Amino acid sequence: MNERNHISIREAIRGRITDGEWAPGAMMPGETDLAEEYGCSRTTVNRALQKLAEDGLIERKRRAGTRVREIPSRQAKFRIPILRHEIEAAGGAYSSRVAFRETLKAPGFIQSRLRLATGARVLRLHTVHLSDGQPYAFEDRWVNIKAAPGVVDAPFDIISANEWLVREVPYSSGDVRFSAMAAGQIEAQALATSLGAPLFTVERTTWLRDLYITTTKLCYRPGYHMRTEL
Amino acid sequence: MNERNHISIREAIRGRITDGEWAPGAMMPGETDLAEEYGCSRTTVNRALQKLAEDGLIERKRRAGTRVREIPSRQAKFRIPILRHEIEAAGGAYSSRVAFRETLKAPGFIQSRLRLATGARVLRLHTVHLSDGQPYAFEDRWVNIKAAPGVVDAPFDIISANEWLVREVPYSSGDVRFSAMAAGQIEAQALATSLGAPLFTVERTTWLRDLYITTTKLCYRPGYHMRTEL
Repeated sequence: MNERNHISIREAIRGRITDGEWAPGAMMPGETDLAEEYGCSRTTVNRALQKLAEDGLIERKRRAGTRVREIPSRQAKFRIPILRHEIEAAGGAYSSRVAFRETLKAPGFIQSRLRLATGARVLRLHTVHLSDGQPYAFEDRWVNIKAAPGVVDAPFDIISANEWLVREVPYSSGDVRFSAMAAGQIEAQALATSLGAPLFTVERTTWLRDLYITTTKLCYRPGYHMRTEL
Repeated sequence: MNERNHISIREAIRGRITDGEWAPGAMMPGETDLAEEYGCSRTTVNRALQKLAEDGLIERKRRAGTRVREIPSRQAKFRIPILRHEIEAAGGAYSSRVAFRETLKAPGFIQSRLRLATGARVLRLHTVHLSDGQPYAFEDRWVNIKAAPGVVDAPFDIISANEWLVREVPYSSGDVRFSAMAAGQIEAQALATSLGAPLFTVERTTWLRDLYITTTKLCYRPGYHMRTEL
């Protein structure tokens, strides 16, 4: 892998786009021509273009070639970290407290969200995540017991459900929603904040092929924000 | 570009990881070996691995080769669309209303956020974005006039500041923050909601090289969520 080479070529091409040599909407030279011009392999040009496509600067079509986008299409990327890692990365000491844990028959909305049979059993888990002993986020999680039977006896006082599940079912797919909600009684108490406080909320549902594993709602303490670069 | 080929090889490799042939933490064969095994070019293997690396399944190091990640590191990606496109994609009719527009000397926090000289002038703009005539989002934007002088006379009744700026300065970089805030008087009135309602909020600051262009805070109506897949 000739790392430096494909990065320098990528930035050279980026410069030619932003300086207007190839205008918005214009076709760019083919990979073979670019490889010849830069005296490198097509692999290298390919890697350079890949990143520019991800950045939303160019559009690559299978037969049609590569075109400069009319309007760059920006993508914000967030690493969804394990909460312990997020807190530790910010310099805090992580701890957690299981506030509620019960196996029960899935209520209707969970049955439908996890595509369960009627009567299927789930584990419901409330966890308070703390940074330096202060509430950081409150998690309301439901786990499909059939998908992860070990969850019933897992030691969630030692390892968080998040980390435990990532180890059990590491390659699941997921759906993520970001929103804002008003703290209800449970969230307000868990996060030591007032009823109705605005909480940044991340909901996630994960599955492996057609088996739904878990759905979770994570409410962060007031003032929290998630940051990334474009 | 042999599109189908690199996708089928990528999915074959993904299967070997998720089926445990290459365990978490294990080294994978080199690109040359994989190319030989699959009877394809190294370019193709390279493209296949690129996507698996993005998906957080493998880790590629320049000299050390490719390793299966201990814990897959997920990345949520959001296209940050132009609001008109977002509303139209959901089937709504877009309109907007400029509620406030004034040029003034930058206040302290804007001067520091946009890295302006003392006394630098900015345009402040309040816009209500509507879908089918109903408030959808409220935007509080500040523009560095020096970075985009045309902004003073731009017809923001016809084109939104967002679209106008994307055309003027298409290749800017940016910083994005997601959070939740309580509706203040201005937001509550603009969004026809109650004081203190929890609003999902996106703040963005953009720059081109070392010239800061604009900073904007977008509050969505209550109940809004942003969705993506992992």
